[in-house]
Amino acid sequence: MFDYKLLSALAAVVEQAGFERGAQVLGLSQSAISQRIKLLEARIGQPVLVRASPPTPTDIGRRLLNHVQQVRLLERDLQSQVPALDEEGMPERLRIALNADSLATWWAEAVSDFCAEQHLLLDLVVEDQTVGLKRMRAGEVAACICASERPVAGARSLLLGAMRYRALASPAFIARHFPEGVRADQLARTPALVFGPDDFLQHRYLASLGVNGGFEHHLCPSSEGFIRLTEAGLGWGLVPELQVRDQLESGALVELLPDKPIDVPLYWHHWRSGGQLLGLLTDHLAQACGQWLVPLE
Amino acid sequence: MFDYKLLSALAAVVEQAGFERGAQVLGLSQSAISQRIKLLEARIGQPVLVRASPPTPTDIGRRLLNHVQQVRLLERDLQSQVPALDEEGMPERLRIALNADSLATWWAEAVSDFCAEQHLLLDLVVEDQTVGLKRMRAGEVAACICASERPVAGARSLLLGAMRYRALASPAFIARHFPEGVRADQLARTPALVFGPDDFLQHRYLASLGVNGGFEHHLCPSSEGFIRLTEAGLGWGLVPELQVRDQLESGALVELLPDKPIDVPLYWHHWRSGGQLLGLLTDHLAQACGQWLVPLE
Repeated sequence: MFDYKLLSALAAVVEQAGFERGAQVLGLSQSAISQRIKLLEARIGQPVLVRASPPTPTDIGRRLLNHVQQVRLLERDLQSQVPALDEEGMPERLRIALNADSLATWWAEAVSDFCAEQHLLLDLVVEDQTVGLKRMRAGEVAACICASERPVAGARSLLLGAMRYRALASPAFIARHFPEGVRADQLARTPALVFGPDDFLQHRYLASLGVNGGFEHHLCPSSEGFIRLTEAGLGWGLVPELQVRDQLESGALVELLPDKPIDVPLYWHHWRSGGQLLGLLTDHLAQACGQWLVPLE
Repeated sequence: MFDYKLLSALAAVVEQAGFERGAQVLGLSQSAISQRIKLLEARIGQPVLVRASPPTPTDIGRRLLNHVQQVRLLERDLQSQVPALDEEGMPERLRIALNADSLATWWAEAVSDFCAEQHLLLDLVVEDQTVGLKRMRAGEVAACICASERPVAGARSLLLGAMRYRALASPAFIARHFPEGVRADQLARTPALVFGPDDFLQHRYLASLGVNGGFEHHLCPSSEGFIRLTEAGLGWGLVPELQVRDQLESGALVELLPDKPIDVPLYWHHWRSGGQLLGLLTDHLAQACGQWLVPLE
């Protein structure tokens, strides 16, 4: 069998984003943890980590991490059957990557009772929906919510539903930039809000209106910040309907062009051999999500 | 003088987190941008980039990026005086790192008029208040908001005020875990919410109550998600008062122990030779922030 002391050292350094913290978590000295990683590299004959800050796994390192993650999930199941193996009756932990907008809206309500009943603690990692799968592939998370359907090797994907986005701005912003009504061809010269370099929602919206090419924009990698900037009139942006029901009702935010939503599908990716708890959470989400997400057309 | 074609190539690869996107931004082929970086490394006799995904600057690379950032700020001033130099009358951009809680609360209101008047676009980068300075040191941002006072070399810091945090939970959470009233010594065995591995606010709060050591917690690196998880009863957590006025008024969230806030100072770090626009923004923030932040005791 593999030497799991060495593999845990690798996992700790990557998960804690550093040798010092990785060592702390394992209760080792920093030189002990580096030695374990050097030994691992000597055994497999190639480097498992790029020594940058933070350290990142090499390709082979990523495959090893993936394996560690799956073994951990299997151990969880065994612990529930053989409680003596369980170290100090610790609560279970699941590491899950999800998009910021899900976390800012429906996620907490969807999982709160499940977590309380199962005594489950969550390690949440926020990733844009288009890049969350990287974390699955790297074996850093047990599950991920993202916009793409295709699962990584060893995992399954399940459609949860779609989030509905609307292009919104504040009344003051619209009055300043569109005194004669919103015209699609002027949108590119009006500051937009974009979540980050991987967010192409605004591009898709403009393209759907026949506007192609670049456009003026602020970058704001925070769901809540995005709403605050929209309310304060810094720009227009595509915002989850779920997140701004109050503002739409009060008129603090207004749709730019009437009833032109964009729906983004959300898939739940989870390891096929991910164990019982992950299976239960998957079933729970499959049943619960219809309350917040719309069906995908 | 330095060869700024080579330095811009380095900046583009780091800022765009990859060779492909860096090349795109500069309108170059990928092989052209790698050649520029190799040439830069040949000239200075050492590597400027760690070729990981994403590429990260070496120490010398970081110092070069810092320099590029400062030159860009100086160019902005010159462009306003010599408009012919200005490429296509593009709006100004400032890259600013700030903590998620500021972005989720007061930031947008504080800067919206300033941005509209100056035709300024923002590239916002979210960093925990304790680590945002790394971005300054790396020369990746023009300014940063963080909890530590000490400026990096070449920069100044200015106290904006403090954010007030309160330890809150939902009434259902309190009823479930503390049927006989909240007791400090039981808090460590009740799930807490922690923003991320650099967030020690909950540790400080527990320590102030005489509770030391580890405690059960979820990890949730999102301001808005943090509130949603608190409301849904997944845990207790320290939350900016500014962000939950409505919930405190309606009773959807309740303070665990009466009137035990923690104040976190926020400093504005900006390059000393950062140019006119950054100077104006600094003056503006110094005047405006008192509306949202409390004085530091």
